[in-house]
Amino acid sequence: MEGEPTLHLRIFDLNCWAIRYLSKRRQERVRLIGDTLRREGFDLVLLQEVWSEQDYSDLRGKLAGCYPFSHYFRSGVIGSGLCIFSRFPILDTLLYQYSLNGYPYMLQHGDWFCGKSVGVSVAVTAPLVSLSAQLHAEYCREKDAYLPHRLVQAWELAQFIRHTSKAADVVLLGGDLNMHPEDVGIRLLRGWTGLRDAFAEAAHFEGCKNGCTLVPDNCFTDKSELLPFPLGIRIDYILYKATSSFTVKCEELKTTTGPAPGTDIPFSDHEAVMATLHIHRQGQPVGATLGTADLALVDVVTEARTEVGVGLRAAQRQRYSSGRMAVLALLLLLLQAAAALGTLAGLGAEQPFPKLSFCLLAFLALGVLVLSASLHLFHTMEVKMLHGTEDQMWMALRALQERP
Amino acid sequence: MEGEPTLHLRIFDLNCWAIRYLSKRRQERVRLIGDTLRREGFDLVLLQEVWSEQDYSDLRGKLAGCYPFSHYFRSGVIGSGLCIFSRFPILDTLLYQYSLNGYPYMLQHGDWFCGKSVGVSVAVTAPLVSLSAQLHAEYCREKDAYLPHRLVQAWELAQFIRHTSKAADVVLLGGDLNMHPEDVGIRLLRGWTGLRDAFAEAAHFEGCKNGCTLVPDNCFTDKSELLPFPLGIRIDYILYKATSSFTVKCEELKTTTGPAPGTDIPFSDHEAVMATLHIHRQGQPVGATLGTADLALVDVVTEARTEVGVGLRAAQRQRYSSGRMAVLALLLLLLQAAAALGTLAGLGAEQPFPKLSFCLLAFLALGVLVLSASLHLFHTMEVKMLHGTEDQMWMALRALQERP
Repeated sequence: MEGEPTLHLRIFDLNCWAIRYLSKRRQERVRLIGDTLRREGFDLVLLQEVWSEQDYSDLRGKLAGCYPFSHYFRSGVIGSGLCIFSRFPILDTLLYQYSLNGYPYMLQHGDWFCGKSVGVSVAVTAPLVSLSAQLHAEYCREKDAYLPHRLVQAWELAQFIRHTSKAADVVLLGGDLNMHPEDVGIRLLRGWTGLRDAFAEAAHFEGCKNGCTLVPDNCFTDKSELLPFPLGIRIDYILYKATSSFTVKCEELKTTTGPAPGTDIPFSDHEAVMATLHIHRQGQPVGATLGTADLALVDVVTEARTEVGVGLRAAQRQRYSSGRMAVLALLLLLLQAAAALGTLAGLGAEQPFPKLSFCLLAFLALGVLVLSASLHLFHTMEVKMLHGTEDQMWMALRALQERP
Repeated sequence: MEGEPTLHLRIFDLNCWAIRYLSKRRQERVRLIGDTLRREGFDLVLLQEVWSEQDYSDLRGKLAGCYPFSHYFRSGVIGSGLCIFSRFPILDTLLYQYSLNGYPYMLQHGDWFCGKSVGVSVAVTAPLVSLSAQLHAEYCREKDAYLPHRLVQAWELAQFIRHTSKAADVVLLGGDLNMHPEDVGIRLLRGWTGLRDAFAEAAHFEGCKNGCTLVPDNCFTDKSELLPFPLGIRIDYILYKATSSFTVKCEELKTTTGPAPGTDIPFSDHEAVMATLHIHRQGQPVGATLGTADLALVDVVTEARTEVGVGLRAAQRQRYSSGRMAVLALLLLLLQAAAALGTLAGLGAEQPFPKLSFCLLAFLALGVLVLSASLHLFHTMEVKMLHGTEDQMWMALRALQERP
């Protein structure tokens, strides 16, 4: 942005829900998204859940003219699903994979296999850092077993933004954060990074009521999930901040509202978020205003740390019980080995040796041993990560409280 | 470093080789390291392979007086083994876990379980970023199956340093990088970040010949590993760089040489590296001089990219063969299911059904299926990561070649 005192930046953010074989009318929707992006000519496009590299390649082919720069972030078994298209050169990229991301054995949720990540790309000739992110999904709000994992991710995302964007003039984060606006995770992310919510700051808004991005009107959403929220929920965000030499204002925020123009289907099961930002270079840097919010931030970090602590204790219990199960299976195997050796040595020769049930039991014990040992390893990692995050949050609290 | 035009910084770096139950005379050595650190009073201590949290706690207790600030980085099943002790406040920390780190089934090498990482801590009142890192070990130099993984790690480390240290006045990296000074990985790291090697820059050097840190004279080293290198090898480094407003000079570099003073044992199987840096604030920022090295950098990145490509093709082959094995095991299971159903339906009733061998075969097929499916998942991730790194390197090459 050097030399340009004012910049209007139009950003498009969408969770594309493009899972091969599973998402309805995927190819048609990806085509539709591509057509719209080409027609509208945004400056920056942040997409999530583009799980198929073929879809990304198709989009890149179609958008090469108006978005000459793009990047697809690879991670996990399936991929991160994140990609960025930009009118400005992408100078560099970096991918950060969250240390915790659900459980491999929760196959029906599948988050673990995706390697949920935040991708960062440094764009424009002067430092504009844009990030695309997705956090762990919420499957049950009342009994949210993944809350600690999502909080660890929110914290890691916040830390990642703090550390990677120190020299950036403007930071933009777009993504499906899977958190309601007042959830502790999003307050933590906003408070700890100083990012502001484009919806809350927008001078003009147009779209679904309350800026919701998962609405019952959308023909692809799961209606039963949205029963407690008849208006829908807002879980997709565009957040931004600038250094003291710049001001960023959100002039306009829009969401899509159901079917795309001229068709009968929406882009995705999520609504897209579109922001027009006005970035202005200031003559004189103004002092940071973060200090005033420190007290509120202490509360948020404390709340998040409590939740992480709850997750830590649950993980410790699971580690313990899987370890105990592994030890029991091992004991059973040893017992069987002793019995088999006894039989070989001629003890109890008067009775027929029950070969089949012996084999079945041995294989069962072996299976349980392998499974519970793997679980034990996994929960050991989980405990380490939750513990590490708890520590980091404690360090942050101490730093906040020691500030003059 | 605000207000202080000149700073003398004494840094200590050591791979402690403190593996519980496995490392020889571990507790004695950790005590010795703690005593020496307390007596010598360094400014910054970067330790690797402190695998036991208890050892860290002991060290922290002992060093609380002279190093009031410290941090232990948790990751993986066992931990990252990284910790930092500092005379200056640690304002913030961040842990980055490499996306590739060996294979879980190579139990005898164990790297996968450690979650090799780079830990970054932001210390001192003004931005001094210090990093402690360890990369994947080299088990066989002639046929180094882990070279692509180590190159991915070197690249991720370099990218991480570039992205996290943009606002830093001085960046320090200490660690066991498991690479010889002329290896492609270390040239990549130095070239891509601009970090300089304290050994090469030191005005005065004292210690093992050529700055070696793994020497045959050390009673804990594996002599057979060092046979091709009678003088030893240099794989532990202190690297540094400064922004244009600062100059950093390495006044002195030392390594330990065998037994610690007053004892019969060395600190570890590695020698410690100790540097005295002289950091000076300049009146006028001078222009960056990186441009002149661009051509050499293109060569290094190209070489590294070729190696990553070799690893990518090997990973693709392994993914294919594990996938094929999983399909074969599944077919066998289906065949068995068909046979069992056939028997239940009364076909072939004239022959006795071989229950035991049937069960054994079924369990064998199931075992092979689970194992090969897991391997297939793992190698799929590996392919994704190697592919992603190849892409990033390509982007870097393009950016380098397009520079005016």
